[in-house]
Amino acid sequence: PDTAARAAAEAREPTLTKPAGSLGRLEEIAAWLATWQGRHPPRLERVRCVIFAGNHGIAAKGVSAFPPEVTVQMVQNFRNDGAAVNQLCKAGGAELDVIELELDRPTQPFDTDAAMTEAEVLDALNAGLTLDLTDVDALIVGEMGIGNTTAAAALALALFGGTAEDWVGRGTGIDDAGFARKRAAVDAAKAFHGAALADPLEALRRVGGRELAAMAGGVLAARLARVPVLLDGFICSASAAVWQAMTPDGLDHAMAAHASVEPGHRRLLETLGKRPLLDLGMRLGEGSGALVALGPLRSALACHTGMATFAEAGVSASEAS
Amino acid sequence: PDTAARAAAEAREPTLTKPAGSLGRLEEIAAWLATWQGRHPPRLERVRCVIFAGNHGIAAKGVSAFPPEVTVQMVQNFRNDGAAVNQLCKAGGAELDVIELELDRPTQPFDTDAAMTEAEVLDALNAGLTLDLTDVDALIVGEMGIGNTTAAAALALALFGGTAEDWVGRGTGIDDAGFARKRAAVDAAKAFHGAALADPLEALRRVGGRELAAMAGGVLAARLARVPVLLDGFICSASAAVWQAMTPDGLDHAMAAHASVEPGHRRLLETLGKRPLLDLGMRLGEGSGALVALGPLRSALACHTGMATFAEAGVSASEAS
Repeated sequence: PDTAARAAAEAREPTLTKPAGSLGRLEEIAAWLATWQGRHPPRLERVRCVIFAGNHGIAAKGVSAFPPEVTVQMVQNFRNDGAAVNQLCKAGGAELDVIELELDRPTQPFDTDAAMTEAEVLDALNAGLTLDLTDVDALIVGEMGIGNTTAAAALALALFGGTAEDWVGRGTGIDDAGFARKRAAVDAAKAFHGAALADPLEALRRVGGRELAAMAGGVLAARLARVPVLLDGFICSASAAVWQAMTPDGLDHAMAAHASVEPGHRRLLETLGKRPLLDLGMRLGEGSGALVALGPLRSALACHTGMATFAEAGVSASEAS
Repeated sequence: PDTAARAAAEAREPTLTKPAGSLGRLEEIAAWLATWQGRHPPRLERVRCVIFAGNHGIAAKGVSAFPPEVTVQMVQNFRNDGAAVNQLCKAGGAELDVIELELDRPTQPFDTDAAMTEAEVLDALNAGLTLDLTDVDALIVGEMGIGNTTAAAALALALFGGTAEDWVGRGTGIDDAGFARKRAAVDAAKAFHGAALADPLEALRRVGGRELAAMAGGVLAARLARVPVLLDGFICSASAAVWQAMTPDGLDHAMAAHASVEPGHRRLLETLGKRPLLDLGMRLGEGSGALVALGPLRSALACHTGMATFAEAGVSASEAS
């Protein structure tokens, strides 16, 4: 963190023509961007959104409302500009890239096996770690992968404990029988992998998935490149949480863009100590919640950098100041 | 309300390439815009933000952290492009107009007199009623007026009952002594005007202010012109509430953009049955919270109008559908 940039942001805020603190979380956003970009004023000229797609062996166990072939179909939809993420990137001013992670080779079902070999999880991590973040001012990582809320639930359980009931939700809208299968799969994974899940990266390998590992890689790359990260929903947040499980300040460069209605997400954000910016009842993934939060981010930046000071504008300060 | 436009929006939503309902309140926004613009698809090409400025006799009673001359100073700041509202209009893509309402002639102190004569309140209402809303796709009305959270509290109390404690907050940041004077002024107004406050428009005349009446006028003009309204904070919402106090569906064309930290605002939104889109700890007025909500509105519109359908994209639907 760049404490000088943070101090510069915090020093400017009370000079601006508004009651002290009256922009609320917009002021927090401006200071956060400065701190983690390492410059004041911060900027948002180039925002990258990278969607990683992966397939999951666990999907064969009937844990999703959608069939596994939807992953590759949706990737095609991304490429044809037809998905929510495409429209939200345009509306929010973000560049979109889609990275397919061996879609023809799903991970192993993690209830009876490790999802990935060490070579496989490293390849997936590297897909994120090697993102080109030159001149990028903020990063959003998102995902597509039928079955991946089940993986996210298993990973959250591995990182932070609890039971399958704590972390498993309805995902894209599974029915009661599928919901029971989903919980059973996560419980089975906990029993099968046992103490091996205590190591966060090993947990990522055993119960995560390629796109989860790639998102984790991207979040770490951003930290090293001084790029603030906007976290999307449950799957993105669970992936990023690997770093906070390893070191308490491991996600300080990331802001929670929104709380999804997937119940595990809210619990996870509480566990991470992150207060979401938005709460719009979304549960789509694809980076969608983070992209909607670009609006408030741009608002925050515009106020912080563009407003006149009391002195410049000849406005009387408050009697309290 | 245009029920055919609403039906068209609601029929399109489940055909789009996402799990049903997964865009949460973004889907609600799209349907709301269609319903009150009276067309499908809705659009957001032209958004008007009109800031009304007025001065208040009650400000002389020490109810604000800022001196009364700040109203005219801030209007100058608006004209010089230096205020939060200027930056937020640029970030959100809204046209800004500022209308001064006889700033050299404050209202009468409403704790001992009616704030306005009948002629004065009509003039102020007309400032909003006569807004040109041709080809406007959404309207935001905002305000500037030292002392106007006190007027808003008195108006909310008049419209919905309760005590000064229920509706009076710290506004721009008044100290304890000023806070006590503010509550006393509202209590005194309740006692002074008594049963006359039972009529919403008479309450607006007696304890409101020029910019409050103008905002109310603008909200009514928007209804007649089929223009959806994004409500800003406490003062804006209290002004608009006049119409709901008169008729239960009087604000159905208005969405609550945010919940401010002014405590009366949250209570008021609950009373109005309106769930705010954003909750960002703001308390600035000037239309600021409504302008930040333009980001999510544009996101909602982009998804609703731009996404491919399952059929167009060749994506398999959920097993549940």
